[in-house]
Amino acid sequence: MRFTSETTTNGVLERDFTFEDIPGVLWSRERSAGPAPLLLIGHPGGLHKKAQGVVARATYYATTLGFHVAAIDAPGHGERPRSADDARWVDEMQRARAAGEPLGSIVSEFNASIAERALPEWVAVLDELQTLPEVSDGPFGYSGMTLATEIGMRLVVADDRIGAAVLGGAFASETLLGLASRITVPVQYLLAWDDPEIDRESSFLLFDALGSPDKTLHANPGPHQRVPWFETEGSGRFFERHLLGN
Amino acid sequence: MRFTSETTTNGVLERDFTFEDIPGVLWSRERSAGPAPLLLIGHPGGLHKKAQGVVARATYYATTLGFHVAAIDAPGHGERPRSADDARWVDEMQRARAAGEPLGSIVSEFNASIAERALPEWVAVLDELQTLPEVSDGPFGYSGMTLATEIGMRLVVADDRIGAAVLGGAFASETLLGLASRITVPVQYLLAWDDPEIDRESSFLLFDALGSPDKTLHANPGPHQRVPWFETEGSGRFFERHLLGN
Repeated sequence: MRFTSETTTNGVLERDFTFEDIPGVLWSRERSAGPAPLLLIGHPGGLHKKAQGVVARATYYATTLGFHVAAIDAPGHGERPRSADDARWVDEMQRARAAGEPLGSIVSEFNASIAERALPEWVAVLDELQTLPEVSDGPFGYSGMTLATEIGMRLVVADDRIGAAVLGGAFASETLLGLASRITVPVQYLLAWDDPEIDRESSFLLFDALGSPDKTLHANPGPHQRVPWFETEGSGRFFERHLLGN
Repeated sequence: MRFTSETTTNGVLERDFTFEDIPGVLWSRERSAGPAPLLLIGHPGGLHKKAQGVVARATYYATTLGFHVAAIDAPGHGERPRSADDARWVDEMQRARAAGEPLGSIVSEFNASIAERALPEWVAVLDELQTLPEVSDGPFGYSGMTLATEIGMRLVVADDRIGAAVLGGAFASETLLGLASRITVPVQYLLAWDDPEIDRESSFLLFDALGSPDKTLHANPGPHQRVPWFETEGSGRFFERHLLGN
């Protein structure tokens, strides 16, 4: 892993890095008070590691809780080239959206394909980040909706370093329902109550399927792009409880 | 209103009071830092103003946020005599519960009857409490599930001093759906995901019906008697945001 640039804004150190062909970014409190856990943020489908919402949350978690917050571009997103297959999927999704057709099956298929590729990348990046002296031994956290929940559910199941996750905005595919049932760490599940594309029932089914004894479902009006800021604060408290034990 | 006793435990002043034939209690931080808002806690059906959960939350809100927290016994509850009519309703409810019959209609009818009587009592007690110099001008908060939500929805609609409410655990009667649609203040709605008696759909319908632009639904595993403590913390933050504006 190679750090390629470093800036500091309002007490938050932002370090860009690359690992193999994966570009990422790591936010930390400028003045560290000893080793702190990692919090991984997955960006939603169609966005990238420095999308506005990702940066806002990362800055908040780093500043308020002292976490090291990492994000990487998913395959075909941000600085990474989109494959011909992925481009066809995007076209098909946009056609279906324009035609007002249900998006569940195409989104689930596309996101599952990206997530299968993203999973080993996150594990490898986590391996690298964990070698940094300022990173504690864990447990670590994961947060992300839509595409990032497809990725996150796989990561939580595959990697026991993840001790708590904030997820949401996914369609209840058979694959995700199966993964959810194998998740046992605490989960905060976010549901966009009035999302025009993602049905409420999918969230109910996935929340129900989660194997976690400690799980909480938070529904808010509006589409999944407009999660209220108090949920970010609430997620912060959730991660503080489960990663710092207080 | 007459204060009848006063004790201090761990920095929290607890004052019992009576107003007409209504017994109540007021919790405050021992060392006040100037006028603070009132938070009214309604106890669930079958319990009373000093039920364990009420005291635990009141103590937390007083200590952490400096609110004055008030609770009163609902008609037929706690220190108050149960009428012959109420006793018949309780018998009928216990019979239906023992027979495994649906409880929705009997509970809604019974709770509505109590709530009609409780509404003017809360308004009068609020009038009295507001004359205390240590109580600020408002807005005030209301928190309570099951019976206390029947009462609370009426109070929020009838009394514009209530600026935020935590509700939950109610059946979606026509009356409550109508009241919910007239509520416009921020609401945090608690849903017991696995409650054996109160159906999830009732909470979905009531949450949907709420006229509040700022509303959030929090579902947690288990029955309504076991709301996780982190929801109390979350409600504290919710009231802090809406009553103190920070």
